Amino acid sequence: MTTATGPRRCVCPGSYDPVTNGHVDVVERVSGLFDEVVVAILHNPAKRGAFTIDERTELIEAAIGHLPNVRVAAWADTLVVDVCTEVGASALVKGLRGGTDFAYELPMAHMNHHLSGVETLFLAADPALTHVSSSLIKEVVRYGGDVTGLVPDAVVRALHDRLG
Amino acid sequence: MTTATGPRRCVCPGSYDPVTNGHVDVVERVSGLFDEVVVAILHNPAKRGAFTIDERTELIEAAIGHLPNVRVAAWADTLVVDVCTEVGASALVKGLRGGTDFAYELPMAHMNHHLSGVETLFLAADPALTHVSSSLIKEVVRYGGDVTGLVPDAVVRALHDRLG
Amino acid sequence: MTTATGPRRCVCPGSYDPVTNGHVDVVERVSGLFDEVVVAILHNPAKRGAFTIDERTELIEAAIGHLPNVRVAAWADTLVVDVCTEVGASALVKGLRGGTDFAYELPMAHMNHHLSGVETLFLAADPALTHVSSSLIKEVVRYGGDVTGLVPDAVVRALHDRLG
Amino acid sequence: MTTATGPRRCVCPGSYDPVTNGHVDVVERVSGLFDEVVVAILHNPAKRGAFTIDERTELIEAAIGHLPNVRVAAWADTLVVDVCTEVGASALVKGLRGGTDFAYELPMAHMNHHLSGVETLFLAADPALTHVSSSLIKEVVRYGGDVTGLVPDAVVRALHDRLG
Amino acid sequence: MTTATGPRRCVCPGSYDPVTNGHVDVVERVSGLFDEVVVAILHNPAKRGAFTIDERTELIEAAIGHLPNVRVAAWADTLVVDVCTEVGASALVKGLRGGTDFAYELPMAHMNHHLSGVETLFLAADPALTHVSSSLIKEVVRYGGDVTGLVPDAVVRALHDRLG
Amino acid sequence: MTTATGPRRCVCPGSYDPVTNGHVDVVERVSGLFDEVVVAILHNPAKRGAFTIDERTELIEAAIGHLPNVRVAAWADTLVVDVCTEVGASALVKGLRGGTDFAYELPMAHMNHHLSGVETLFLAADPALTHVSSSLIKEVVRYGGDVTGLVPDAVVRALHDRLG
Repeated sequence: MTTATGPRRCVCPGSYDPVTNGHVDVVERVSGLFDEVVVAILHNPAKRGAFTIDERTELIEAAIGHLPNVRVAAWADTLVVDVCTEVGASALVKGLRGGTDFAYELPMAHMNHHLSGVETLFLAADPALTHVSSSLIKEVVRYGGDVTGLVPDAVVRALHDRLG
Repeated sequence: MTTATGPRRCVCPGSYDPVTNGHVDVVERVSGLFDEVVVAILHNPAKRGAFTIDERTELIEAAIGHLPNVRVAAWADTLVVDVCTEVGASALVKGLRGGTDFAYELPMAHMNHHLSGVETLFLAADPALTHVSSSLIKEVVRYGGDVTGLVPDAVVRALHDRLG
Repeated sequence: MTTATGPRRCVCPGSYDPVTNGHVDVVERVSGLFDEVVVAILHNPAKRGAFTIDERTELIEAAIGHLPNVRVAAWADTLVVDVCTEVGASALVKGLRGGTDFAYELPMAHMNHHLSGVETLFLAADPALTHVSSSLIKEVVRYGGDVTGLVPDAVVRALHDRLG
Repeated sequence: MTTATGPRRCVCPGSYDPVTNGHVDVVERVSGLFDEVVVAILHNPAKRGAFTIDERTELIEAAIGHLPNVRVAAWADTLVVDVCTEVGASALVKGLRGGTDFAYELPMAHMNHHLSGVETLFLAADPALTHVSSSLIKEVVRYGGDVTGLVPDAVVRALHDRLG
Repeated sequence: MTTATGPRRCVCPGSYDPVTNGHVDVVERVSGLFDEVVVAILHNPAKRGAFTIDERTELIEAAIGHLPNVRVAAWADTLVVDVCTEVGASALVKGLRGGTDFAYELPMAHMNHHLSGVETLFLAADPALTHVSSSLIKEVVRYGGDVTGLVPDAVVRALHDRLG
Repeated sequence: MTTATGPRRCVCPGSYDPVTNGHVDVVERVSGLFDEVVVAILHNPAKRGAFTIDERTELIEAAIGHLPNVRVAAWADTLVVDVCTEVGASALVKGLRGGTDFAYELPMAHMNHHLSGVETLFLAADPALTHVSSSLIKEVVRYGGDVTGLVPDAVVRALHDRLG
């Protein structure tokens, strides 16, 4: 068999507002499957999130600093297929928490394949974290709940300062 | 960033009784994402299929002969995680035709991860082929329907000889 | 606007082993939407059901006798698209009890459209009958349960004689 | 068998902001099943869309002008069952792109049947267009993507002028 | 077998804006399974609903007044697990209208179990009311539809006064 | 509020061929919500399982022996609603591993409510065990996989002796 040349690169896109242990689990597992992983923060500057892009970047970097082949970058108002072209990635990787995630992601995967030929690979989320999404985490913190163990410790503190 | 050494290898498991254009599409797309792809025919010798293992192998090899980094092999009564260990693959890749496929594959992906740590990556099937499964193809041929365009031409002929 | 010529005809296919009030509800509603409705019993003579084709036909005819534009017929080992061609129908109509039915019917609808261009129209089952399927009805009767109100009265008696 | 008198009429409701090739495919197929088809643009004047009602109407009319038995009309703040009564239609027809669409449409179909007895018929969308929705199309265009082949050519131009 | 001491208590949470016959059906059935049922109106004071908390409370109390072991109370900006602790309930009970409800409720059930160990029990909604949600009811009334039979009579009048 | 008299009793039905840690988790959690729990092994003597009814009973009893308010019993060819009547239970409780389980259980819950008024309560399975079913466990053991941690230790040994 022949072996393709050049590193195998993929993109893990999201808004990461903020990063959760579900995201970290997916990125860790993907980092073992590809030569290089780009965690891509996609955002729309017209919409305010809980955290700024710099804060989101810093929180992700702290959480995945032990993974030498992963880097983080942010794009405003950009199609994810253009991110893939720019960084030279042939695949997007998305974690799926259940059938609802899949139903939501499927048309976008087809659209992205239509637009540029990029492939989307889906990875089943760690079952112990299927209830963990950035939005549910923020709602729990706003009402005084404790999310320790569901997001990195630095994120627990940042959420508490911002929303608690 | 560092780059892992050794080729990236994955396994596309199935019974392939017989191979369809849906399978071929998935293997073609996966062959662009990994250095080497092993198409693994998993079977239970106690159960008779429409085609023998040799026939299935031959039909797949004819269909993917243009892909230099893909090879075909068969295993009897073997866990797919043991196939991955044997061939040195860190990932399984499965095509998904819809949410029902995903619901069926999800527990197996978790079980395989539990058994050996192997990852399962899901790829959305070509939408134009979501109605194509080996079992529906065989049912259509048995009742006299024409499946040209849904399976490789050699498979159309083989199905006609066997079931038509 | 122009008006197409010839009667609008559709096919309601199934195994009808036996007919349930869910089937009757669908056929009644469809009979108001099309000029003529053909209830098509599709069967595989190699597989024995609870009722013979003659018994199934008789039970359906008794249940839909008040609908002047509906007729019943049976086909062995025949593709449903060939039934449509034979009776001159441009559409299949299927009742859906829920998302699982839809997921099961979707690939067959695409396959039938691929084979002959026939359209499949889906109609939501009466919510009060979503738990009524021929197979669950037979299981309940076998274990001594009462299915009055879920199937026509003649079918209650026939099930009791055959399985009770 | 008897044949009902009067033309068979149905309604294809939506916001059509703007019409896509998915809509056009459904209307074309439905126009072969009914004598007359009314494409009904339902809107809430309090909410601004990307296109005005006149623009939406014009874009649909350009796309379905080859279908002699189809006409387009708009209703503000109106229940779709009242539209059906007004135009004399006994059925609504909706395209379904997948199980999520079905889950969303099912309660509305039951509600509409409850309110007026009108039937809702579902038609599976062309698999090659399951990723095409007005909202995803607008998002892609806003970020500079090319949607040629997914919407009529006149809509590609209109989207470019409005959002590109 | 031993028998636990103290009454068995559960919470039926929701926004109840307004209560529907679907809610009433669930509360009636649950009142036969637990010693005491607390209908908990959870709300965010920053968001205005169609009815005030006092109005919602009054409408529920009128609808469930025949059930001696059910009481109604409201909480602002409170986690539902804290409501359960406060009233001494070991379980939440939610009605499910279909698979979409389940997919939506599942992560919240896991989150609530994670936060406090409280269990969530799901009860299938009365099939004849699967199309009944507070939001669809309000939409129908706004456009002039009649919702008699889907909500208590007092709610029909209140909706008419507020939105009709 | 009034308090109902008599113990609150429920039934956890299944084939338990054999019991898994998923079953044990559900029974443990349910034993905290009801005064008494009956684990009901339902079987059809005409069909052979991997384990006899005596073996299944013994394996469950060993796994739930620490729960004083739980007992195990078996019924042949019996409707589950008749089991509930016999033991004086007002509710069935089923664990759900995902949306597919729910779709499968929903018609049976409606049927059982129709037959006898008994309620079915659904409990979300422990996410860490969503991949654990008796049938998948048996398949893994047959092909030489290790299921330690997924079933009680006594079941690991019994499976090994029977199928390994």
